[in-house]
Amino acid sequence: VPEACVTSAGSRHVRLGGGGEFDLIRTFLESAPPLPDAVRVGPGDDCAVIDAAPLALSADLSVEDVHFRRAWLSPEEIGWRAAASALSDLAAVAAQPIAVLVSLALTADDVASGWGTKLMSGVQRAAQSADAGVVGGDVSRSTGPAVVDVTVVGRSERPVLRSGARPGDEVWVTGHLGGAAAAVALLERGGALPDALRARFAHPVARTREALWLAGRAELHALIDLSDGLGGDLGHVAAASEVAIELDPSLVPIAPDVEAASDLGEGMLALALFGGEDYELCVVAPEGALGPLVDSFQGRFGIPLTRVGYVHAGEGVWTRDADGSEKRLERVGFSHFATATDSAARTRRP
Amino acid sequence: VPEACVTSAGSRHVRLGGGGEFDLIRTFLESAPPLPDAVRVGPGDDCAVIDAAPLALSADLSVEDVHFRRAWLSPEEIGWRAAASALSDLAAVAAQPIAVLVSLALTADDVASGWGTKLMSGVQRAAQSADAGVVGGDVSRSTGPAVVDVTVVGRSERPVLRSGARPGDEVWVTGHLGGAAAAVALLERGGALPDALRARFAHPVARTREALWLAGRAELHALIDLSDGLGGDLGHVAAASEVAIELDPSLVPIAPDVEAASDLGEGMLALALFGGEDYELCVVAPEGALGPLVDSFQGRFGIPLTRVGYVHAGEGVWTRDADGSEKRLERVGFSHFATATDSAARTRRP
Repeated sequence: VPEACVTSAGSRHVRLGGGGEFDLIRTFLESAPPLPDAVRVGPGDDCAVIDAAPLALSADLSVEDVHFRRAWLSPEEIGWRAAASALSDLAAVAAQPIAVLVSLALTADDVASGWGTKLMSGVQRAAQSADAGVVGGDVSRSTGPAVVDVTVVGRSERPVLRSGARPGDEVWVTGHLGGAAAAVALLERGGALPDALRARFAHPVARTREALWLAGRAELHALIDLSDGLGGDLGHVAAASEVAIELDPSLVPIAPDVEAASDLGEGMLALALFGGEDYELCVVAPEGALGPLVDSFQGRFGIPLTRVGYVHAGEGVWTRDADGSEKRLERVGFSHFATATDSAARTRRP
Repeated sequence: VPEACVTSAGSRHVRLGGGGEFDLIRTFLESAPPLPDAVRVGPGDDCAVIDAAPLALSADLSVEDVHFRRAWLSPEEIGWRAAASALSDLAAVAAQPIAVLVSLALTADDVASGWGTKLMSGVQRAAQSADAGVVGGDVSRSTGPAVVDVTVVGRSERPVLRSGARPGDEVWVTGHLGGAAAAVALLERGGALPDALRARFAHPVARTREALWLAGRAELHALIDLSDGLGGDLGHVAAASEVAIELDPSLVPIAPDVEAASDLGEGMLALALFGGEDYELCVVAPEGALGPLVDSFQGRFGIPLTRVGYVHAGEGVWTRDADGSEKRLERVGFSHFATATDSAARTRRP
């Protein structure tokens, strides 16, 4: 099946044959920006060709009424979030994005109304903001919920995996946590959403530059993006690295303005730990490696870099009570199939 | 969001944290074969990492009741076809497959019944048959039709694009055409399907080895896989190369056994030209380049290599009538959005 295709002035685009599918793809890509240099063949042939190595690859699926609701987000925002979520996985191995492939299953109405084209423009904007180009994908009719699958490709000279955390390391996070989940919680209540909170939900930014900056200045032992909530994602790091992680909840950075706006009080910490979709980074580094970088990080990126815990020998994620006893952090992140009989449409939330 | 993850003995797999989503992914990949050497990081981290360049990439979307019907195919066959269709795009630029990413939107019932796991085993088998490994993807609940998006990655030293056809070139096809479409036509009539015909529909094989063999022995000017039907796909080559292609319908290779079995008579030619999903290759090469290879090709791969037309200056796809006058080949391949108001579920067919 022919890939996404374009007839714009871009140099590595291929001319298309006829057919409604290609007319649609033309509207998707007619204003596409120039492609990165590493893209040797862009949209329009059977494959895109990228000339860079090693390459990091990841795919991220967004399904209507599971990952997004039309009532809460514009199509551009839905596209942006789908792409930002995938790009965040590249940031999570410290890879520089190069290319994006987008597969869309849409109803005929979504095509006729221009909804799909608006969604694609959101994907395009997110890709462009990360210096990546849309190089391919697929489109199909569907009678069901809209589905967006975004595959991202990035250059990764020295990928920082989840599996390198060692006892004695420090655990850090970028930015503020819980904002996206607070927004969802308020939307579900039917309340109005303050602008700052809405932005955290509707317009997440993959921490690509932050990851590359940190990886260039310190030895990073492990890296993961916070898509499932800090609690769940620390669990992934602990499992992959075969270590225990001790988290100090009092250190978890919750944005003061979000905390004030959200009216969720104590619940904000639970959202920060288990809410997910913040797309901040969790960074594991040797003791003392990141401390000296905190001020320049904050100055450069306008977000904090905060130590929230330590790595020990053992397994699992733990917190320490006031009396010094350790307690296992129980609740895990969002799971798509936690209860296999749950077939009701439910928006992804804590 | 974490990628597909596995705890098998494979060397480049990462240990997983908890959660039902990961339990499901474990069942997908627990019997996964070893990964190709170029895969530096396999499933389980935020990204897979592939150390090879240049890389060809393509995505192919399969939607229930558009690309497949459960009544006609087993879940293993649905998975195989979804992957074979994507791998065919790698063959179509003469790339050697390395890796596959699979995103699945499934109902909770499909997970609980094991339908999704069977589908994934079909994807795995197709990947393995092409010497590729499943290195990532995503899974999500859905309340709608099952959706499978397969992204394929292959090494492509000298990609053969659609855009290189030149006046004077010959146009060739591999194998026999129309079989998949004939099977669909018979299934829609409700008739029984002879084994040979069913195999062409349910178990297409991407012509990877054939493409690499040809590209290694002759100068190929253009290459495309026949997913939209020869008529439509020649249109893509003509458009991309800015040439005219003259097709001789009398030369189009229709399998004799399929023709006999299908009971479609004259309709078989239309299915070969417009039916699609045969996943054979259309090869454009300089005059005389492929003729000497016909016998060894047939001997090695057990399928014919047949000249079906020529490239001229001009545009579009043409046939020549008995009186010598040229006629434009009118009907185009399957289009997902040919009529924007068509919202009924319809299986992809001519």
